[in-house]
Amino acid sequence: MRIGVFQFSPKWGDIGYNLAAISDTIFYYKGVELWVLPELCTTGYVFESKKDLEPLAEVFPSGKTSEAMEEVTRTSGTTVIMGVLEKLGENYFNSAAVFSKGFFMGIYRKIHLFNEEKHLFTPGFESPPVFRVKDVKIGVMICFDWIFPEVARTLALSGAMIIAHPANLVLPYCQDAMITRSIENRVFTVTANRVGTEQIGSKPPVTFTGKSQIVSPTGERLGVLSENEENVLIVDIDPSEALDKNITKLNNLFEDRNPDVYKL
Amino acid sequence: MRIGVFQFSPKWGDIGYNLAAISDTIFYYKGVELWVLPELCTTGYVFESKKDLEPLAEVFPSGKTSEAMEEVTRTSGTTVIMGVLEKLGENYFNSAAVFSKGFFMGIYRKIHLFNEEKHLFTPGFESPPVFRVKDVKIGVMICFDWIFPEVARTLALSGAMIIAHPANLVLPYCQDAMITRSIENRVFTVTANRVGTEQIGSKPPVTFTGKSQIVSPTGERLGVLSENEENVLIVDIDPSEALDKNITKLNNLFEDRNPDVYKL
Repeated sequence: MRIGVFQFSPKWGDIGYNLAAISDTIFYYKGVELWVLPELCTTGYVFESKKDLEPLAEVFPSGKTSEAMEEVTRTSGTTVIMGVLEKLGENYFNSAAVFSKGFFMGIYRKIHLFNEEKHLFTPGFESPPVFRVKDVKIGVMICFDWIFPEVARTLALSGAMIIAHPANLVLPYCQDAMITRSIENRVFTVTANRVGTEQIGSKPPVTFTGKSQIVSPTGERLGVLSENEENVLIVDIDPSEALDKNITKLNNLFEDRNPDVYKL
Repeated sequence: MRIGVFQFSPKWGDIGYNLAAISDTIFYYKGVELWVLPELCTTGYVFESKKDLEPLAEVFPSGKTSEAMEEVTRTSGTTVIMGVLEKLGENYFNSAAVFSKGFFMGIYRKIHLFNEEKHLFTPGFESPPVFRVKDVKIGVMICFDWIFPEVARTLALSGAMIIAHPANLVLPYCQDAMITRSIENRVFTVTANRVGTEQIGSKPPVTFTGKSQIVSPTGERLGVLSENEENVLIVDIDPSEALDKNITKLNNLFEDRNPDVYKL
C-alpha cells in the first residue's frame, strides 16, 4: 500500500484555497492509496473565539470539503484522512473526515483537546474509529491524542493496522513518542503534521513543528519530512506486517496483556 | 531525593558475591536515599531449566538476600529496589524486592515474562505495587513490562511519582520508550539495566544493553550510563515535580483521560 503525507501550511480561513492545494497534490502524485493530511488543514488552527469558527465550520458530509473530496477521491481512486472543522448541532468539533473512492466513510471527533482548543471545541464522545479500505484496517486519532496511550491502544485492539494521525503539533515530544506507539502496538503510524506560523488577531503566534513521519510496527522511521518545509512523504508499506504481534516467538504483545491486573 | 542506580554484571549463580558487591557500592556512595538495581541481580539471568533455579531461589523475606539487605538498608538508612529470584510455594518468580531502613517492604512479581522466562517463571498475578518512602510514592515494574503501557499507567494512576524499573534488557527499544512512559504519565522513571554477556550451558550467549537512565516527568534524561561498563549513576531529583500532571494550563493528563471511550 502506498501511503502519502502532505505536510503543508494551510492558508488561514480559506477553505477553497486549501482544498485546491490538496486536490492538486493528490492528482500530481498518482498511485497513492492512502493520504493523511494535517489537523484542521482546510481552515487553519488559531481562532480567537467560537464566533470565528461559524463561517468556516461544515456539516459532514455536506459542504464544500465533502463535495470536493468525494470528487477527488472518486476520480483518483484514493482514500483521504484529513483534519476538518466540523459543526454538529450547535457544537464545533476538531475532527478528521475520511473519504474513499467517492464516498464519505465517516468522521472522528478529537477526544483530547489541547490547551485553548477547549475554549472552541466540544471533545469527541465516541471511541476512536477503525475504517476498512480493502483488507486494511485504518484507525484515526488527532494530534494531542498521542499522549494518551489508551487511544492508540484502543485503535490497535480494535484491529487497526495503520494509525492515521493528522496533527498540528507545537510541543517537541510527539514524533519520538509515536515510535513507542508503533512498537507497543505493532502498528504503522502515519503522523501528518503541518508547518508554518499562524498569528491571528490578538493571539500570540503559534509555530508548528513539521517532521511528519511514517513509522513501522517495529519502530523504524520509514520516512520523515523537515521541520519547516511544505513537502510530500510517500512510502510503500505492507500493512499485513502489523498483523504479527509477536515480538519474540513466545511473546505476542496482545495475548501477553493481563487486563485483570491493570487499574485503568 | 538522591537516586542511585548500580549498573553491573552480576556473577552468575553467586548470590554471596553479588550481595557483597551491592553492599560495598551502597556503603561507598553515602547519602543515596533510593537505590534501584538490575533485574535478577543476585543470581544472573540465563538458566537452562527450572532445575537450575532451585538452589538459587529464595523465599522472601527470608534467606541470605533478605538478611543482607535488611542489614545494609538499616545501617545505611537507604531504600533498595532490586531484582531477585523468588520462590513462593512451588513456583518461581522473577521479582523485585523492596527493602527500606532495615525492613522488607514487599515484593513485585513480574507480570509480563520475556521470551524463555516463560519456561522458568510463573507470571505475577497481582497489580504492580506502589510503596511509600516518607512522602514519596514509588512504583515498581520489571524489564519487559515497559512495552505494555498499562503497567506504567497503572502505577502512575496509583500515585507513583517515581517508577523503579530493574531490567536485564536485550532489545534496543526500551530506553527511548521510557522517555515516553515518563512524559505520558508525568513521572520519574529509573531504569537500572545490567551489562555483560552470559553464556550458560548449551544456551546461546545473551548480551545486555546497559544505558541505565533516570528520566524526568517532562522526558528529560537526567543521567545515563554507557552500554557496557559497570558504573553508578546518581541524580538528585525533586519527586514532587511528578505531582504536577499539567502539561499546559488547561491540560491535566489525568483529568483529561476519558476511560468511557477507551476499549482496553
